[in-house]
Amino acid sequence: MPATRPVERLQDSLRQVTALIEKHRVLEAMTHAQAGPKRELLESLQHRQNVAELHQRLKALHPADLAYILESLPLDERLMVWEQTEPVQAGAVLVEVAAAVRESLVERTARERLLAVLAGLDGDDLAFLADALPDDVRREAYARLDERALSWVRSSAAYPEGSVGHIMTSDVLTVREDQSLGGVLDELRARPELPASLDPLFVVDARNVFGGRLPLRTLLARDASLRVADVAERESVSFLPEDAAAAAAQAFERYDLVAAPVVDERGKVLGRVTVDAVVDFIRAQSDLEALQRAGLSGEEDLFASAWDGARNRWLWLAVNLVTAFLASRVIGLFEGTIQRLVALAALMPIVASIGGNTGNQTVALMIRRLALDRLGPGALRHLFTKELSISLLNGSVWGGVMGLAAFVLYGHAALGLVMAAAVLLNLLVSAVVGIGAPLLLHRSGRDPAQGSSVLVTFTTDSMGFFIFLALARLFLG
Amino acid sequence: MPATRPVERLQDSLRQVTALIEKHRVLEAMTHAQAGPKRELLESLQHRQNVAELHQRLKALHPADLAYILESLPLDERLMVWEQTEPVQAGAVLVEVAAAVRESLVERTARERLLAVLAGLDGDDLAFLADALPDDVRREAYARLDERALSWVRSSAAYPEGSVGHIMTSDVLTVREDQSLGGVLDELRARPELPASLDPLFVVDARNVFGGRLPLRTLLARDASLRVADVAERESVSFLPEDAAAAAAQAFERYDLVAAPVVDERGKVLGRVTVDAVVDFIRAQSDLEALQRAGLSGEEDLFASAWDGARNRWLWLAVNLVTAFLASRVIGLFEGTIQRLVALAALMPIVASIGGNTGNQTVALMIRRLALDRLGPGALRHLFTKELSISLLNGSVWGGVMGLAAFVLYGHAALGLVMAAAVLLNLLVSAVVGIGAPLLLHRSGRDPAQGSSVLVTFTTDSMGFFIFLALARLFLG
Repeated sequence: MPATRPVERLQDSLRQVTALIEKHRVLEAMTHAQAGPKRELLESLQHRQNVAELHQRLKALHPADLAYILESLPLDERLMVWEQTEPVQAGAVLVEVAAAVRESLVERTARERLLAVLAGLDGDDLAFLADALPDDVRREAYARLDERALSWVRSSAAYPEGSVGHIMTSDVLTVREDQSLGGVLDELRARPELPASLDPLFVVDARNVFGGRLPLRTLLARDASLRVADVAERESVSFLPEDAAAAAAQAFERYDLVAAPVVDERGKVLGRVTVDAVVDFIRAQSDLEALQRAGLSGEEDLFASAWDGARNRWLWLAVNLVTAFLASRVIGLFEGTIQRLVALAALMPIVASIGGNTGNQTVALMIRRLALDRLGPGALRHLFTKELSISLLNGSVWGGVMGLAAFVLYGHAALGLVMAAAVLLNLLVSAVVGIGAPLLLHRSGRDPAQGSSVLVTFTTDSMGFFIFLALARLFLG
Repeated sequence: MPATRPVERLQDSLRQVTALIEKHRVLEAMTHAQAGPKRELLESLQHRQNVAELHQRLKALHPADLAYILESLPLDERLMVWEQTEPVQAGAVLVEVAAAVRESLVERTARERLLAVLAGLDGDDLAFLADALPDDVRREAYARLDERALSWVRSSAAYPEGSVGHIMTSDVLTVREDQSLGGVLDELRARPELPASLDPLFVVDARNVFGGRLPLRTLLARDASLRVADVAERESVSFLPEDAAAAAAQAFERYDLVAAPVVDERGKVLGRVTVDAVVDFIRAQSDLEALQRAGLSGEEDLFASAWDGARNRWLWLAVNLVTAFLASRVIGLFEGTIQRLVALAALMPIVASIGGNTGNQTVALMIRRLALDRLGPGALRHLFTKELSISLLNGSVWGGVMGLAAFVLYGHAALGLVMAAAVLLNLLVSAVVGIGAPLLLHRSGRDPAQGSSVLVTFTTDSMGFFIFLALARLFLG
């Protein structure tokens, strides 16, 4: 039996493939160093053995593992492994691989080979890859589909990313409510092929309208003469293709679903969403959010050029420069005050920084609450009171500490008081903007995870500088 | 048929429950306002009707929906709903509800009721709740378990959070490889109860050692006289209870698993992990990481006291104050320089801020790469080169822009050059620390998502101030 611990097995495979590539490299280097017919014979023999071994190794791998290995290899080695992959397997790999790496492969694969690779894929997979393929290749790949598959691919590729339609598949098995359980079993046995995960079967009426679920355990355990309608579970969840995939994911989490039907406006079954697609969606979503919070537009291929990496970060850098520049102009207003008491220059970043950090804590909590629809008007009022109280509490304690530190450091009591007051006030600002910014973005239909932190940091920076320096001008002269 | 769109249904339920609570409130207010026996009769009748209606409404809800509603209600309304929940349902709700809210419920539930609530739960759920229960309640709840269930609860409660043992369940169904498929079907039918999700069955040998999977579709479709060993899928994934749940989650994602067995060192089947537990784990993990990145120790109950909220944020606030204070001391070293050219005070936060933002972009990418084990020594060298190149590129462009802006603003050419050089150099610093900090934390066995951003921001702040002010002193001063 093969090793069953997946992490170790995968790292083993990666090591073996890397070793084979290394060997290949050495052989190539030898070819260049030596000359003559004897060398050629030796080289070509060893070389062929080596390639055959690599080929064998790759063939034994799960497409997802091969995708991981491709993602982990620098571009030229990645392409070498990709070329050695059988077309059928390569199709499945193309579906599994990260988007940035998929792009690098599609770009560098000859048209004929790309078509051979796509030939092994079903309509669901083709629809998933549609956006990543050159127009002419996509058209030609579609040409071999029958009419039904083609209309499926067209319609499901048309649903936008983030919708249920985008992650649904066509491999749905329905049973009629007037069938007997024995009849269902016979029908399943008679099918040439069954979908990978069957459980539960979806129950429909004569017009193909969804009406409940038939778990396999019921099918197996209950008497074969019973009718489906007698044992089906009526309480059941379904989705429209236009529904948000995020809402579907929440339902899968909440009700521990393994599969759910996708229906049209009249309740007719169109396809289904399975839990593996939901898991992929949840992971991709949370990864993307983590990157977007840091101002990246998406995942980077580890081995892409510095130029691609730089572009991925430009927008954010530009926005950040503008906001930092504006905050700096606030300081510019008080240059006279700073010149008279230069300690202000050293202390002001503390006031700004503590406001930014506290504001972003509030943002992190808000994003989750907004995602869960947890903020009715009553809850919102409560939340403002609560966050302001927290700021008052923390501001008094830590503002006091920083005021004391400023006093000890500069021996200037009024400066200490100004410091303490500024920290407290900026924490109150951070509470308001920490709730307000994500709320505003959410209400205007945007993703609060994407712009909140810029807004908050900008506000707490400028207000931090302003409050501290204005208080200093007023009271320290 | 009930509404099947889960999001709408849930919001409907929340509205209905809230309306009933509101009615209850009004009745209570009337009780206080009026007096006399007639009023009492009226009130108690209406009141009883109202409570009965609430009771009925709650009974019809899925435990996960009821958990959501409890989480969305302020403390006193939450407790009112909780009191009206049937013990059997309340047990399932306690398992589903968020940890912070669970705490609020357990704290305020009388011992007798709590025991009644726990009485409906199986060993897996009790083990899951173990840490949340008072010692004496836990002991008494355990007392009713039979010996086998008790040893299961004890051993699985002992596995730490984040391990496979913590999320595994005991409801695993195994079949012997020497059975016939027909025999397996008969055995399933003979069982008094089958687990909710059956697929796939796990195949074991005579010593209960795991040897493969038997998907239900194979069981249903193939000839009943075939032996399990002939049709089982040999290539299969299993876990040890000590394995990281995160590694199991990656395997579920990668291989589209619905369930996988947990085995001991000799390969004997102990239990299983199902995809719903994995989905919950992935979601909890990514939520926790988002909160921890912002320096929060965990989720907050929306309706908990400001005091609890303040404590959740203290550690971070304290750390942030210390680092901001240290960065401020760097500025303190250059007070003379600032006094001579006060424009420096206005410009220095730009240099610091742009370094922090860029560094945290690198961190976001690094965290994901480390989680996927994607950084061999070769990749790391490549990554340093790449990030430094990106910084050089972005630093030249945007440093140039900021230098020009400083020149235009202050009419001081040398100041512009110093600004441009400082931005470029601080971006190089941010590349090094953006890779180095998460790597260091990861290698020392910590979670890079938790401390990286503090380290990076501290370094880019202090170095930003230092580079800019030191260059200014050298060339302007």
